Amino acid sequence: MAEVVHMIDSDVFLAFSTYATIVVLKMMLMSLMTAYFRMTKQAFSNLEDTNLVKATEDRKKFVRVDPDVERVRRCHLNDLENIIPFVVIGLLYALTGPDLSMALLHFRVFVGSRFVHTVAYVMAVPQPTRALAFGIGLFTTFSMAYRVLTTALFL
Amino acid sequence: MAEVVHMIDSDVFLAFSTYATIVVLKMMLMSLMTAYFRMTKQAFSNLEDTNLVKATEDRKKFVRVDPDVERVRRCHLNDLENIIPFVVIGLLYALTGPDLSMALLHFRVFVGSRFVHTVAYVMAVPQPTRALAFGIGLFTTFSMAYRVLTTALFL
Amino acid sequence: MAEVVHMIDSDVFLAFSTYATIVVLKMMLMSLMTAYFRMTKQAFSNLEDTNLVKATEDRKKFVRVDPDVERVRRCHLNDLENIIPFVVIGLLYALTGPDLSMALLHFRVFVGSRFVHTVAYVMAVPQPTRALAFGIGLFTTFSMAYRVLTTALFL
Repeated sequence: MAEVVHMIDSDVFLAFSTYATIVVLKMMLMSLMTAYFRMTKQAFSNLEDTNLVKATEDRKKFVRVDPDVERVRRCHLNDLENIIPFVVIGLLYALTGPDLSMALLHFRVFVGSRFVHTVAYVMAVPQPTRALAFGIGLFTTFSMAYRVLTTALFL
Repeated sequence: MAEVVHMIDSDVFLAFSTYATIVVLKMMLMSLMTAYFRMTKQAFSNLEDTNLVKATEDRKKFVRVDPDVERVRRCHLNDLENIIPFVVIGLLYALTGPDLSMALLHFRVFVGSRFVHTVAYVMAVPQPTRALAFGIGLFTTFSMAYRVLTTALFL
Repeated sequence: MAEVVHMIDSDVFLAFSTYATIVVLKMMLMSLMTAYFRMTKQAFSNLEDTNLVKATEDRKKFVRVDPDVERVRRCHLNDLENIIPFVVIGLLYALTGPDLSMALLHFRVFVGSRFVHTVAYVMAVPQPTRALAFGIGLFTTFSMAYRVLTTALFL
């Protein structure tokens, strides 16, 4: 990591910033998708939320679990479990001074795999589409972690 | 991001460090609040945890779901879903060299919105208080992401 | 944080990179452990996932909640709630220029506590082992946050 001060101004760091921002924005859209499904399916977690829809009827019946809402929430949680590690390890990876082409390959494959994962999850595409997308994203992050540990190991 | 090496020593970066640390500490307090509610309401997820309260009675009945515990846990998960993106995008935003006043505005509005969100969630304040706090935080992060992507785009 | 540009090339930053990568990799292994338990216990969240095991029988019965899978998932969520704050606050802490020995102490204690936490959670070790591991990790992160706020406070 000797060249780190130079790297932070580099194309690799700009590329990391771009792809990290895009994939984090994608993750944040899951919040809006959950809200959308909760409103349209009228399925809420909190009694006080039900008056976002209608305040006249017996509102307790809208505090319920809906399978479509739960599906979006599982997708969101999977994003948290995979995109955050990518951002952390990707930042450290960008500081190790990798080739731009290798760095772009890692960032593009990861971000692409997570978009495929989201579509496959929300639309319930038959397996192994989602499992493959998940695995490819995981492998990409492991590959970056390998470079960080072989370049910067200090125990 | 040309001025990034200078920015990392700047007031903007110090401000980011301060507000990011404060809002992450707030998020971590949700863990302690969950633990507190689990102890006082005697509602645990794991059988081995029940002897933290009493070891004499039939302990299996304390492995149960409590609505107040679940409320705090939902608030905590919402923090993870929103505060982590703020930290990631806020770090990259701080490196793009924004005006200090604009940066402070973003950081303060976001952190303020999350404190309001937590109080509104835990105390079940009538909507749309919580929805507004959530939306303002989301918008602040989107606004920072917009600057990152327009300043540093490298695809 | 005046010495930050120098710190990012320092042993403290290399140590942070190493320990952050190790503990994030540990967190990612929880995904694989969840997948392993889902396959062996035949307990899935989505109907489309059940054909990863067998496609002949009535597959709906494999969409179910299994206590061992849920235990691993709770451990994974606890990792997210604790390891991500460590990474964020640890990065800012590394930039404040702490002594190498103090920094290593923080990083090693935290990472060690999370490995103990995982073993204690997955194997249902009697309390207070897991509670102590959780508390030690929390305290380590609070200690780093204290240094960040006393060194870099800018409100």
